[in-house]
Amino acid sequence: MSEVDKVLAEIDSGLEGSLSRLFDFLRIPSISTDPAYKSECRRAAQWAVDQLAGIGFEARVADTNGHPMVVAHYRPPHASRHVLFYGHYDVQPPDPLALWTTPPFEPRLEDSSRGKRIVARGSSDDKGQLLTFIEAARAWMKTTNALPVAVTVLLEGEEESGSPSLKPFFDANKDELKADLAFVCDSSQWDATTPAIVTRLRGLVGEEITITTAGRDLHSGMYGGPALNPIRVLANLFSSLHNDDGSVAVPGFYDGVSELPEATAAQWKGLGFDEAAFLGEAGLRAQSGERGRSVLEKVWARPTCEINGINGGYTGEGFKTVIAASASAKVSFRLVGKQDPVKVRAAFRKYLTDQLPEGVSIDFHEHGGSAALELPEDSPALPLAANALRDEWGKEPILMGSGGSIPIVGAFKRDLGMDALLIGFALDDDRIHSPNEKYELSSFHKGVRSWARILDNLSKW
Amino acid sequence: MSEVDKVLAEIDSGLEGSLSRLFDFLRIPSISTDPAYKSECRRAAQWAVDQLAGIGFEARVADTNGHPMVVAHYRPPHASRHVLFYGHYDVQPPDPLALWTTPPFEPRLEDSSRGKRIVARGSSDDKGQLLTFIEAARAWMKTTNALPVAVTVLLEGEEESGSPSLKPFFDANKDELKADLAFVCDSSQWDATTPAIVTRLRGLVGEEITITTAGRDLHSGMYGGPALNPIRVLANLFSSLHNDDGSVAVPGFYDGVSELPEATAAQWKGLGFDEAAFLGEAGLRAQSGERGRSVLEKVWARPTCEINGINGGYTGEGFKTVIAASASAKVSFRLVGKQDPVKVRAAFRKYLTDQLPEGVSIDFHEHGGSAALELPEDSPALPLAANALRDEWGKEPILMGSGGSIPIVGAFKRDLGMDALLIGFALDDDRIHSPNEKYELSSFHKGVRSWARILDNLSKW
Repeated sequence: MSEVDKVLAEIDSGLEGSLSRLFDFLRIPSISTDPAYKSECRRAAQWAVDQLAGIGFEARVADTNGHPMVVAHYRPPHASRHVLFYGHYDVQPPDPLALWTTPPFEPRLEDSSRGKRIVARGSSDDKGQLLTFIEAARAWMKTTNALPVAVTVLLEGEEESGSPSLKPFFDANKDELKADLAFVCDSSQWDATTPAIVTRLRGLVGEEITITTAGRDLHSGMYGGPALNPIRVLANLFSSLHNDDGSVAVPGFYDGVSELPEATAAQWKGLGFDEAAFLGEAGLRAQSGERGRSVLEKVWARPTCEINGINGGYTGEGFKTVIAASASAKVSFRLVGKQDPVKVRAAFRKYLTDQLPEGVSIDFHEHGGSAALELPEDSPALPLAANALRDEWGKEPILMGSGGSIPIVGAFKRDLGMDALLIGFALDDDRIHSPNEKYELSSFHKGVRSWARILDNLSKW
Repeated sequence: MSEVDKVLAEIDSGLEGSLSRLFDFLRIPSISTDPAYKSECRRAAQWAVDQLAGIGFEARVADTNGHPMVVAHYRPPHASRHVLFYGHYDVQPPDPLALWTTPPFEPRLEDSSRGKRIVARGSSDDKGQLLTFIEAARAWMKTTNALPVAVTVLLEGEEESGSPSLKPFFDANKDELKADLAFVCDSSQWDATTPAIVTRLRGLVGEEITITTAGRDLHSGMYGGPALNPIRVLANLFSSLHNDDGSVAVPGFYDGVSELPEATAAQWKGLGFDEAAFLGEAGLRAQSGERGRSVLEKVWARPTCEINGINGGYTGEGFKTVIAASASAKVSFRLVGKQDPVKVRAAFRKYLTDQLPEGVSIDFHEHGGSAALELPEDSPALPLAANALRDEWGKEPILMGSGGSIPIVGAFKRDLGMDALLIGFALDDDRIHSPNEKYELSSFHKGVRSWARILDNLSKW
């Protein structure tokens, strides 16, 4: 029995313990975007440090101006290679709470067509995913008292809130964090039986806008007519964001956006992606976005503009005949190719400001920004990881794109000169960021096994 | 000393007691639109019944399917005339709470350029106003042990939430409520020193809309592009509600709207209304509404469409990259002339539904509707009331319009065949429906005195 087979056997027999630890982790409501949960974020970081230290890592909670980082090192004397593993311990807010079948921070197992699944906020994004790596390392240490390569673990606590502390932390800890390659476990498979390595990521620009028209809320009887309504102003501005063909109307927005190379377009076409099933699973009855482009292209290779939230006037029970003094909204852009987040933000602000009616003021508040990334497909580690995934899943992994934005990958490249491979075991129907988020027990189990194999293969690098 | 002079002297010497009773009334958070305050609404009704019974009225809390009515009668043996006095004991929600200087249901006196003012939710709309009548009746009873005419008092508890119980209550109590004339105390003066009788009222149609595009909230990375965004749909719909000239774009909306008669237009022009001051007081830096019309005309004689509230996606602290499954808004129309609320509602629903993109569903929820009213200026009671106001204020009252909607006036006419005179002592800067609502102490005091004089003059009817 080879070393890795012993490790895999240990993983199989220890699955119950792994799951119990994941449940402990999921019970901590580490919502990074809401200041009310600050101490819970720290508690989650400390929990992860305790786990890593228990396995044999040199681990610490590293303070930042925001939520802390978890940094842990395993430094064997003779390892040829050094990899960094990244995940995040923070989670999205669980609202709307009413749509959860059971409380979001009380994890449970439920039956599904794929076996058991774990239901809780963070089960997939990203606590379940990051624990696949830690449990793989635990099994290696338990079985062989060593890991095949040097490993640094970096867990962030602000991934869901724009990662404001990342750059200062990287700047201050460059030497400690630099490795030969980073692994990020925060992405999806191609499907439930086909692993994937993500090589394209969209960037993100987040903006918050407040429109103010009056000094106070006004009675719509006494002022309705002459009073400017900020919700109407917002509606007019937002209706100008897209052209009739579904493209974004902000001037200069498409600077840096290239058409997909023909080979890539052909490869994606060959995937046989079921658009109707993808849309149907989300309850979408029609398709939006740029006319004449496929769903995969829209999500993996085209930029977007979305209104993520809007609020103004009276929104409680019943009715209130009020004209609000101000109204606000959160808007984000997904970026691709060489789109510059700084330029996109400026163009957006100018576009709205130029259209403002007289007597209306607009305030902008920045919520993070990151460029898109296309990862090199010639990294020597890529086939090693791909082979490990093929061995575990019995299928060649798909080299795919991802519509989401993972600013860390940009920061690895920009601040640490380090490439990253994105390997995750989430599924598209995991309801991440939504009520009743879940992670298949098989995703968790085979995820742990996959990392055990990848660590093994990396010793051949 | 005439009888009325003795009553006025009693009002002056008893002001402190009147104010203390008003403060007790204001401490009851009778927010009718929010089910959480149901018992507080009943408490406010009971408080008013206790006051009226204490004065000598035959008073009761009358149950409805919603919040109860207060009904009280004073029936002297030989009164020639019978009037009904209407007010409402319910108040608007106080939010946004953060903008109140002191808690909304802890009334206080503060200094103002016009002397003292009473600050609390409901101080003006309508608890302070309705108490001017009750305190006038109290002074008459205390001084003469009688009122000059028969009086029915009707206080509603659902004025701020669409008055759903009014019609059934009127239908069931027609004989008990019918009087020669109704007085409604829920309106403003022309200015702080000039009384007014309102003869025009705008109608109201309230609608709540929910747009649904997906089965659940979606991640804007994984679905951004192909996913329909309900907030974008709402923005597009709302941007279509008005034409470039500020008029409402819903087809048929202006059916039944007439141009102002020349004489009325000239009279209003002669009022020397200071548009800049009116807008400036509200913090409005520019004017909206139909191009080429005056502010008074817009508020008193033109219909409007307003978005009173909008809500969708993530609106909490920080940022959430979500595409909401649904978004909702509250929209209202102010009606004038012969506009039909039923037709306006239907036209609005058709206009939005006809524009809906494929794959989008829309739900409408009705929030009350009432036609506009133009009151007869030849009622014999009108000069009696006008003279009483002139005697108190030393100025001829202005016969004006009101932009607000008081459905009760329509119900009096439609269900009970009864005309109404609208006499109130509120001021345009009372911040009704807004934080820091106030009522001038002088409005309260001279309001009580005005009703004492009106009751006196009505004995000559």
